[in-house]
Amino acid sequence: MTQKRQLKLGAMIHGVGHGWGEWRHPKALPNASTSLAFYQQQARLAEDAKLDFAFIADSLHIHEKSSPHYLNRFEPLTILSALAATTRHIGLVATVTVSYTEPFQVARQFASLDLLSGGRAGWNVVTSWLSGTADNFGKPEHPAHATRYRIAREHVSVVKGLWDSWEDDAFTYDKQTGEFFDPAKLHTLGHKGEFFSVKGPLNIARSPQGQPPIFQAGTSADGRDFAASNADAIFVHGENFEQASAYYQDLKRRAAEAGRDPLKLAILPGIRPIVGKDEAEVESRYQQAVDLVSIEDAIVALGRSFDDHDFTRYPLDAPFPDVGHLGANSHKGSSERIVELARERNLTLRETALYFSRPKRDFVGTAEQVADQIEHWFKAGAADGFIVNSVLPDGLQYFTELVVPVLVQRGLFRAEYAGTTLREHLGLDVPVNRYAAPAAAKAPAEEALA
Amino acid sequence: MTQKRQLKLGAMIHGVGHGWGEWRHPKALPNASTSLAFYQQQARLAEDAKLDFAFIADSLHIHEKSSPHYLNRFEPLTILSALAATTRHIGLVATVTVSYTEPFQVARQFASLDLLSGGRAGWNVVTSWLSGTADNFGKPEHPAHATRYRIAREHVSVVKGLWDSWEDDAFTYDKQTGEFFDPAKLHTLGHKGEFFSVKGPLNIARSPQGQPPIFQAGTSADGRDFAASNADAIFVHGENFEQASAYYQDLKRRAAEAGRDPLKLAILPGIRPIVGKDEAEVESRYQQAVDLVSIEDAIVALGRSFDDHDFTRYPLDAPFPDVGHLGANSHKGSSERIVELARERNLTLRETALYFSRPKRDFVGTAEQVADQIEHWFKAGAADGFIVNSVLPDGLQYFTELVVPVLVQRGLFRAEYAGTTLREHLGLDVPVNRYAAPAAAKAPAEEALA
Repeated sequence: MTQKRQLKLGAMIHGVGHGWGEWRHPKALPNASTSLAFYQQQARLAEDAKLDFAFIADSLHIHEKSSPHYLNRFEPLTILSALAATTRHIGLVATVTVSYTEPFQVARQFASLDLLSGGRAGWNVVTSWLSGTADNFGKPEHPAHATRYRIAREHVSVVKGLWDSWEDDAFTYDKQTGEFFDPAKLHTLGHKGEFFSVKGPLNIARSPQGQPPIFQAGTSADGRDFAASNADAIFVHGENFEQASAYYQDLKRRAAEAGRDPLKLAILPGIRPIVGKDEAEVESRYQQAVDLVSIEDAIVALGRSFDDHDFTRYPLDAPFPDVGHLGANSHKGSSERIVELARERNLTLRETALYFSRPKRDFVGTAEQVADQIEHWFKAGAADGFIVNSVLPDGLQYFTELVVPVLVQRGLFRAEYAGTTLREHLGLDVPVNRYAAPAAAKAPAEEALA
Repeated sequence: MTQKRQLKLGAMIHGVGHGWGEWRHPKALPNASTSLAFYQQQARLAEDAKLDFAFIADSLHIHEKSSPHYLNRFEPLTILSALAATTRHIGLVATVTVSYTEPFQVARQFASLDLLSGGRAGWNVVTSWLSGTADNFGKPEHPAHATRYRIAREHVSVVKGLWDSWEDDAFTYDKQTGEFFDPAKLHTLGHKGEFFSVKGPLNIARSPQGQPPIFQAGTSADGRDFAASNADAIFVHGENFEQASAYYQDLKRRAAEAGRDPLKLAILPGIRPIVGKDEAEVESRYQQAVDLVSIEDAIVALGRSFDDHDFTRYPLDAPFPDVGHLGANSHKGSSERIVELARERNLTLRETALYFSRPKRDFVGTAEQVADQIEHWFKAGAADGFIVNSVLPDGLQYFTELVVPVLVQRGLFRAEYAGTTLREHLGLDVPVNRYAAPAAAKAPAEEALA
C-alpha cells in the first residue's frame, strides 16, 4: 500500500525573532528569547496544530552588533528538554554544531532528549560559520569551509555509531538471574579517525525511534553533498519557487546518486509567512513586518553571511561592493546567493540589504492564498514541506489557526498525529542497529520450521 | 537579625540506584534510569517535602561490568531541564566534569537551565576519575590528579567569568529608541590561561540568582582546597560521625584561610538512610538492602575507586591486597579511605568490599531515630545538611514522608520554601557581577542627599 504523500510542517521557535527589529513590535515580549512560558506557548500552538516538529536555531558567537535574539537566548538542548516534559507529540529539533563539540557529548545529550521525549528528538547539524566562534573555544583558527564538512562527516558518523552502542533488545532485566543486559548486545565503537578518536560505548540506550533524524541546511556544494548523503531532512532558504525547485531536483538527484531513496529525504524550505484574515489585514501585517526592518539593521544582518563583515564602510547607494572571498569560508552558500543576486539585478548596497532583510511577497496573503502557494510548491516539486519562521510576534498563531486548517481540509496535511515519534511524523523508518543480526534473513527460515 | 541555622536537604535522584543490585528489588522499576515519569515522581516527592534541591550524579565511561545505573541513564543537564518545566521550587543540581568539557558550553548550558528554572540551577563540579574517559574524548591520556584540579580551578573561573558577561540591568528593552541593551553593561572576558582560551561574551544573561551555586565533592587534599576556595556546597561521603566531624572542621578552617565566610559553605554529607514505620519494618528494610549486595558486585564496586581495577584476581579471604598507587590518579580520596580502613581494621578483601557496598547502620531506624542522628550531626558540627541517597526503590518516599515532618516539627527544617532560587534555599547571597559599579559605596551618599 502506498501512503498518500503528506506535507511535513515544522515551526521554528525563537524568542524575539531572528531579525534585528522584531522585538520592537508593540506586541513583542522583549525578553521572549529567555522566557520558558513563551516557548511553551509557541510549542503548544505548534502541537495543537499537529505540526511535525519545533525547530531551534543556534550560533555560538556574539558581539555588540549581533541581533537581539542571538545575544541572549536559551541553549537548544536544554530548552527542548524542558519542552519535552510539557508536550506529548511534537518533534524537537535542536541545532548543534560539529565544529566545536565532542561527538560523545552530542550523542549522549541527543539520546537523552530522545529518551526523555519518547523518541521525538532531531539533530540539525551545522558547521558554524562565524570565525569568531573559534575564540570562544580556544582554537587557533576557525576551520576552513571544506574542512568543516570533513569534520561534519566524521562527527556525524561517530555520533550515529555511538547511538548504536546498545541493541534495541539489549536490556533483559531478569531479576531472578541478575542479568540486567545481554553482553552480546553491547557494542564498542572503537573509532579512530582524522579528527576524532572515540572508543565508546555510549552510556545510554536507543529510543523508540532508533536514532534522532538528522537535519541539515547545506546550500554550498559541500553542504549539498553532505546533506544528500547524511540528512533525513533538509532545511533550506526558500528564496523563490524557481530556486527552490532547482535545489529540490538537485538534492533529490544527489541523494539518489548517493544510493539513497530520495523519498526518504524531506526537503523543507524555511518560509516567513505573513497571514491575515482578509486583504486589509494582510497588508497591515505585511507593512508592520516591513517597518521592523531598518536599513542600519539590514546592513548588519547582511554582514553576518560574510563572517560579520562591516558593510557600513561602503556607500549605501552605490552598487553592491566587491568584498572578494570574504564569504567563502563563512556562510558560503548564503554569501554566494547574495553576491549573485546583487549582480544579476544590479542592486545597490541598500537595495541588497533590504531585499534580504525585508519580508518577501511569497507566502504573504489570506489563509487560502498562502495555502495555494504551499500547495503549488509541494505539488510542483519544490518542497516536501516547510519550516515556518514567524516574523510577527503572533505569526505562528496566525499560521496554525488560519492556514493549517485549510491544508488539512485540502488533504495535504493530516488532522491528527499518526505516530508518536519524530521519525513516524516524517515518514522515516527506524534505522536498524548496525550490529543487529539480520532479522529479515532469519525470519523466513524460522517460519519454514514452524 | 540573625537567622536561625536551618538544615539543608537535597535528594540524589537516580533511576535504579548506584549500587549493582538495586534494580533487582521486587519493587524496582528496572528501566527507571531512563524513565522521565520516574524522575518526575521522585522530584515531586522531594519538592512536596520542600527539599532544597535534587542532585544528579554522573560519569562518562562505562564498560561491561559497570553498575546498571551507569550503563544507561539520562544525561544530567537534559533531565534537569525537563524537571525544571514540571517543578516550581526545588533546586536542580547537575554533575558535569571539567576534564572533558569546554567552559563556554558548560557556562551556557547551566545558564540556560538556570533561566529555564527561574534561578534554580546548581553545578556539581567533578574532575572525572576513570581514566577510560579519555578514550571517549580523543585524549591521549587522562590528566593526572593534580592536573585535573588545576584544570578545575581555571575551568570554573572561566565559567564564572562568562556568567558575568551581562550585568543584571544590561537589557533596557526600549522599543521607542531601539536600545535593546546598554553596551556599557556587556563584557568580554578575554581569558587566556594554561588550559583554556575563551574570549566571550556569553550569549545568555544571568538568572535571578546571579550565578548557579557551585557544588563539589573533594576529599583528597587537592579536592579539599579546591572546594574550600570555590564551592558553595560540598557533597562528601558520610562515613561516620568522627570522620564527618573532622572533615567539617577541616573544610571550615580551609574556607576561612581562603578568606571566605565559613557559614557560606554548606557541608552536606551524602547519607543512605533506611527508614521504617516501626522497628520490625526497619529491620526488614535494612535486610532487603543488605540482600541486594552480592559479593561479586561488591568486588566490582570496590574496583571503581581504583580506576576500575579488577579485584577478582586476589583471594577473597586473604588480607586486603597491596594495590600500590592504583588509586592515586583516580578517585584519590575514596581509594585512600578504603586502603586506610582495611589496614586499620585488618580486613580481608571480602570484608572490605562488603563494608563499602552494604548499607551502614548509621541513619537506619524509625523516623525519630533517623531524625535524632541528623540532629546530632547537624548540631555537633559534622554537617550543615545532607544529601539523601535512597537505597530501596521507595527510599525517598519513606524519608520525605516520615523523617522530614519530624525535622520540621523540631524546628530544624523549614515547612515551606522561603525563596524561589536555589541560592535562597541554601542561604547564599547573589554574587555581585564582577563588572558592576559598586552600588554599596554610592548608596549612603545618595541617602544623605535625600
